[in-house]
Amino acid sequence: MQKRILVLGGDGFCGWPTTLHLSAQGHELHIVDNFVRRRQDEELRVQSLTPIRSLSERIEAWRELSGQKIGLSTLDIARDYAELKTLIGEWRPDAIVHFAEQRSAPYSMKSSWHKRFTVDNNLNATHNVLCAIVENGLEEHTHLVHLGTMGVYGYKTSSFKLPEGYQRVRLLSPENNEESEDTEILYPPDPGSVYHMTKTQDQLFFYYYNKNDGLRITDLHQGIVWGTETAETLRDERLINRFDYDGDFGTVLNRFILQAAVGHPLTVHGTGGQTRAFIHIRDTVQCIRLAIDHPPAAGERVRVFNQTTETHRVRDLAHLIHELTGAELQFVDNPRNEHVENELQVENQGLQHLGLQPITLSAGLLAEVSEVAGKYQHRCLREKIPARSLWRARP
Amino acid sequence: MQKRILVLGGDGFCGWPTTLHLSAQGHELHIVDNFVRRRQDEELRVQSLTPIRSLSERIEAWRELSGQKIGLSTLDIARDYAELKTLIGEWRPDAIVHFAEQRSAPYSMKSSWHKRFTVDNNLNATHNVLCAIVENGLEEHTHLVHLGTMGVYGYKTSSFKLPEGYQRVRLLSPENNEESEDTEILYPPDPGSVYHMTKTQDQLFFYYYNKNDGLRITDLHQGIVWGTETAETLRDERLINRFDYDGDFGTVLNRFILQAAVGHPLTVHGTGGQTRAFIHIRDTVQCIRLAIDHPPAAGERVRVFNQTTETHRVRDLAHLIHELTGAELQFVDNPRNEHVENELQVENQGLQHLGLQPITLSAGLLAEVSEVAGKYQHRCLREKIPARSLWRARP
Repeated sequence: MQKRILVLGGDGFCGWPTTLHLSAQGHELHIVDNFVRRRQDEELRVQSLTPIRSLSERIEAWRELSGQKIGLSTLDIARDYAELKTLIGEWRPDAIVHFAEQRSAPYSMKSSWHKRFTVDNNLNATHNVLCAIVENGLEEHTHLVHLGTMGVYGYKTSSFKLPEGYQRVRLLSPENNEESEDTEILYPPDPGSVYHMTKTQDQLFFYYYNKNDGLRITDLHQGIVWGTETAETLRDERLINRFDYDGDFGTVLNRFILQAAVGHPLTVHGTGGQTRAFIHIRDTVQCIRLAIDHPPAAGERVRVFNQTTETHRVRDLAHLIHELTGAELQFVDNPRNEHVENELQVENQGLQHLGLQPITLSAGLLAEVSEVAGKYQHRCLREKIPARSLWRARP
Repeated sequence: MQKRILVLGGDGFCGWPTTLHLSAQGHELHIVDNFVRRRQDEELRVQSLTPIRSLSERIEAWRELSGQKIGLSTLDIARDYAELKTLIGEWRPDAIVHFAEQRSAPYSMKSSWHKRFTVDNNLNATHNVLCAIVENGLEEHTHLVHLGTMGVYGYKTSSFKLPEGYQRVRLLSPENNEESEDTEILYPPDPGSVYHMTKTQDQLFFYYYNKNDGLRITDLHQGIVWGTETAETLRDERLINRFDYDGDFGTVLNRFILQAAVGHPLTVHGTGGQTRAFIHIRDTVQCIRLAIDHPPAAGERVRVFNQTTETHRVRDLAHLIHELTGAELQFVDNPRNEHVENELQVENQGLQHLGLQPITLSAGLLAEVSEVAGKYQHRCLREKIPARSLWRARP
């Protein structure tokens, strides 16, 4: 069934390939973006390794190739509430995919300004979307799909798998250990940066608007994305996706691959003992399609999936890239304030039950990413590689 | 020991008597306020039942009576970050008492604009204060005392007492009920309005800034405040405190007392089966003094107290006022979306261990409030009494 889908942040690293994938499925797509991500490139004096085109050129290229139109509204959804409300009210989307948040942990910690920008932008953006759905009376019509993060759970080693959002607990009374009945709660949040904190606060927005207004919401707690191209972005170079390698927006595995391609040592923070959850960008777009195809029922609580396919220890990934490319490892002081080593087990069957066939780490896929990195290595600014954003100004 | 204390929102219902009480103790006080509460009176076309004076007249009257000066900065702390940072950096407060949030649940639900104002104001205000402390390097120096709400816990009937912030739980694995080790978490939040939601989100700000930056924070989950005068505000009529009776800002017990004084029926929402936690304004100011006198140690987690002295069922309060005054009860449709009836048991020994001697409901105190209500009843606008803010626009 064809759906009308609004993609907030549709010009970004996940938003653009998701828009193309959903358009390729025959849905009607409309992008909302304020191009803040491109302005952040200017601020940080760095560019995507890949030569991404303007959004209007991207959209025109896709129309040429596929015959599908993609709409566009240039709005700041954290500020331009009246315009957002009107757009949602007139367009009446079946689904809204919400990528329009500042998504980098290091960027969120660069300075007081960056902390405040991240909080102000992410919280007002999410809340404005919720208000606009309710004010338009679309509580039962419009399904909101939000990109969360695995980081809401934190990285304390747990003795069993992290659940998909909800945790069964037994409340213990302080005085006498008399036990109450069991209950199910949102997994106790433990954010590791201001960015992650905003995503734990988003969960409370969703909890409340689902409870009070009956909004239908899916929250996808995504792992660290790697890869760059999808089936749709590969169809024309004008459709090429972002590849971030800088210390703020680059994600760890893509950074290792780029570092290997340009002859830079693989920068491992601390001991590299951090275990994290990962997903390939091709699976990201599949997961979002599956979430849209399976909205929660009316009256259902917020649906939460862990959008991740595998976990790896950071130094194991570095060793793997070393074996494939010969690149040396460089252990550097960890700019973050986080557990030095952790284990991580994640429940992730929800999306697979809906049909996801996970793409896991393979030499073939790594080679494909390496090829992209190699092809555009002349665009790399080596001085932008180190991660310089400190979690604490004072030790 | 004399301390320098910044009171954010020092012109408000709790802020003003707290400022006077702390000044009377010999501390050095400085108020920050943007007078939004007075502008809300204009917006709602209602005034405090009591004839409150301008803040400058209040401050001058206090100086005359006590010889104590109170400083004043007119700032919007959710917006004027640079000025807030400079003030905190130059004044180096030992404690900051943070009342500067939109504090009415009905006001937060009046419209989409009011929801968005509450979120934008409360979350940016709290976050700006945290950032300003960190950016000034005052993490170990300045103790932040925040007014939370009992509403963060929600009003599901629990089989034992609500703890003071932290709940011991046993995580249960989904597959086989194999139990993990016990742990202590922030009590699972369950907000009942957009206003309450922002206070649950504040808890995550505090959790994170305590964890990452070592901030010393006390969060006081206050019950519903009643009463109006304190020992200090009684010293001169120019020092008189606010008395809100309107459907948005008036609190339930003060509203009943006012209704009885003006011959209006006591408006009970739903069955009046809601059990809530209460505190007298004289205890509010004592509790804040005690919190300031006992800051958390360096490295201690966020300290949470339940700032409440007793619980009552709403219809029991209505019956009590009926018995004292003869006023009739009027059961009206509940504009809120909340549990019809609930039980409530609250742990509240923390502040009593620090020295609080609770003032609980008594005929004498009720008579004192009645006297205030009677004295100023000519200022009451009867049409402002009903609570008209609906939790859901559509049933």
